[in-house]
Amino acid sequence: MSYSERREKVYAWMETEGINLVMLQDNEDRRDSAVRWLSGHPADAVLFLSSDRKALLVPWDINMAQLYASCDMLIPFTAYSLDPVNALLDATYNLKTPAGGKIEISSVTSYPDFLRYVEKISDYDIICRKDGIKPEIDRLRMIKDDDEIRVYRALSVFTNQVMDDVEKNVREGVLRTEVDVAIFIEYTVRQQGCDGTGFPTLAAGPGRSFGIHAFPTYTSAPFAGPGLSILDFGLVMHGYTTDVTMTFAREPLSARQEKNLGLVIKAYDLALSKVKDGVLCRTIAQAVDMFFKKSRRSMPHGLGHGIGLQPHEAPFLRSRADNEWHLAPGMIFTIEPGLYDPVEGGCRFENDVLLTENGPEVLTESRIVRM
Amino acid sequence: MSYSERREKVYAWMETEGINLVMLQDNEDRRDSAVRWLSGHPADAVLFLSSDRKALLVPWDINMAQLYASCDMLIPFTAYSLDPVNALLDATYNLKTPAGGKIEISSVTSYPDFLRYVEKISDYDIICRKDGIKPEIDRLRMIKDDDEIRVYRALSVFTNQVMDDVEKNVREGVLRTEVDVAIFIEYTVRQQGCDGTGFPTLAAGPGRSFGIHAFPTYTSAPFAGPGLSILDFGLVMHGYTTDVTMTFAREPLSARQEKNLGLVIKAYDLALSKVKDGVLCRTIAQAVDMFFKKSRRSMPHGLGHGIGLQPHEAPFLRSRADNEWHLAPGMIFTIEPGLYDPVEGGCRFENDVLLTENGPEVLTESRIVRM
Repeated sequence: MSYSERREKVYAWMETEGINLVMLQDNEDRRDSAVRWLSGHPADAVLFLSSDRKALLVPWDINMAQLYASCDMLIPFTAYSLDPVNALLDATYNLKTPAGGKIEISSVTSYPDFLRYVEKISDYDIICRKDGIKPEIDRLRMIKDDDEIRVYRALSVFTNQVMDDVEKNVREGVLRTEVDVAIFIEYTVRQQGCDGTGFPTLAAGPGRSFGIHAFPTYTSAPFAGPGLSILDFGLVMHGYTTDVTMTFAREPLSARQEKNLGLVIKAYDLALSKVKDGVLCRTIAQAVDMFFKKSRRSMPHGLGHGIGLQPHEAPFLRSRADNEWHLAPGMIFTIEPGLYDPVEGGCRFENDVLLTENGPEVLTESRIVRM
Repeated sequence: MSYSERREKVYAWMETEGINLVMLQDNEDRRDSAVRWLSGHPADAVLFLSSDRKALLVPWDINMAQLYASCDMLIPFTAYSLDPVNALLDATYNLKTPAGGKIEISSVTSYPDFLRYVEKISDYDIICRKDGIKPEIDRLRMIKDDDEIRVYRALSVFTNQVMDDVEKNVREGVLRTEVDVAIFIEYTVRQQGCDGTGFPTLAAGPGRSFGIHAFPTYTSAPFAGPGLSILDFGLVMHGYTTDVTMTFAREPLSARQEKNLGLVIKAYDLALSKVKDGVLCRTIAQAVDMFFKKSRRSMPHGLGHGIGLQPHEAPFLRSRADNEWHLAPGMIFTIEPGLYDPVEGGCRFENDVLLTENGPEVLTESRIVRM
């Protein structure tokens, strides 16, 4: 991956904004995959980017960083007793940040932590704003580069193969329970050289498919018995995840179950027909909300979301009035309409879509499996 | 679980502090298991606790909440377009918070979000402080109640059984790769009625055990070949997780590998010998750091941590000067010394310990497996 090219884009933005130093942190309490996207380091670390185009990584696990990270400098976080304020103080020294300069910290920094930075780093102007480095990096990450698109093409082939295998094994009665299905996926993907699954696989049989995100994610309950079962999973390679949902519909189905399945498929087609360069994501999501509303249904979640190093990232296909994302070539996102009923169970249909210069290309081949 | 008793403790604290309304949020960006601990709801939600002893839950998935939550009022989060500020505004109305009253929001609220609360909820005094509701709940959660200790006793039996089964199957050559071991655990626990694993199982063969947290967490690489392999996992029941680490040491071992194994076992014994009511956690961790230092080794992580609804929670057994936790009966925590070498690999030995009125009771039976 072209980490230095990505950093170059951030440096250019820093120049425009007059920012001398940017600090990003990925840790257990608060993951920030921007650190990996900019440095290659896949685990807990603080990343400093300096306006003179130097990147300093402060990883918790220095052995790991020596294998994975691609930065100008490495200092173990343990040298600062894992205190990011200490790390920042030393970074201003190592990166020669001019006194009085502007240091931007992540917009997710808590209010009490922000006060501590301001108190301890008093020689600098500490900036923490909603519309700063975070949305800028989100914007950059939305448009996948050639390396990323190559990963997604390969990953989609694996994902489609796994869906075929799951369907075959469920039909043949080899996979009978939620745990059977989830474990089959977990095992298969690692055998095929993927890094794993992108989020806990949701395998919900007819008794549990009413949940948007089934809880627990899978159990020893039967899967794909009469009614509606949901399987939602993603495969990971180089940190990037796919995200697909299949619904298994086994007869006998109630009229309401049939109706919901039909509505979900129509909603998917409606959404896909509206995917093109420049479209406001909100309008697609609102069209689907309106479509469901006409049938007196409502979808309790967004229509879709970007995928990448995070299973949910920009752009978001949501109907909220404050959603200002527009589609553009290079974006990879899900379309996943779903309906959930405490009695009838739930159904969701989700594929991953790459928007190319020539329109949408559906990368994955999810399906409603009729049994 | 006794959710109303737990809330009563928080209400009493609110009274002392003069707080009229507390708001806690659990969502994908920032998990807060305090919501589950106080309401029973295991998924995304906002929880409001009012000084007149009313609990209002605003869950994303209302169907799920109707099954799991135990609160006085339920309103779906979708009614507020998933905007916590809107939910808070309405909560002040529904819970009749007196104008000018004090509303405490979580200390992890970001600085930009804090500014938005202050702007939008101008009739109230919005409080966001490090030493407020969060550490108070952390303190309450540290001491496990009888229900929780009962869960941990049962869960430890399962965990020990799984460790026995893994050791047997590794010795017999049935489990040969990292993925074999991790998947065996995942499958077994759900068959036995556990909810799953508490965190991604770390299974690292000799080539990857140098990492504190192996990355990826497990692969198709060989496990338990010559040298040091690490297996770190936890089982979950009712949301509570155990956390154990076994090291598999297969001959031939280098002198340095033997030395590190011996040091880790001695460090564990040293730590356990210091566990008693009232001890400052920092002093135990510092004693272990000092012990390693004498042999010119250093441990890049804390000595241990509380376990519960989160795999890492208070008290923390760390040597940092600002660590002020003291041990007390009812606490359940790990002791997990480890050493990591980029060439020789890593070893870690971790058990879960309950401190009773009569001293430490080691709940789990982890081990260094010699092969």
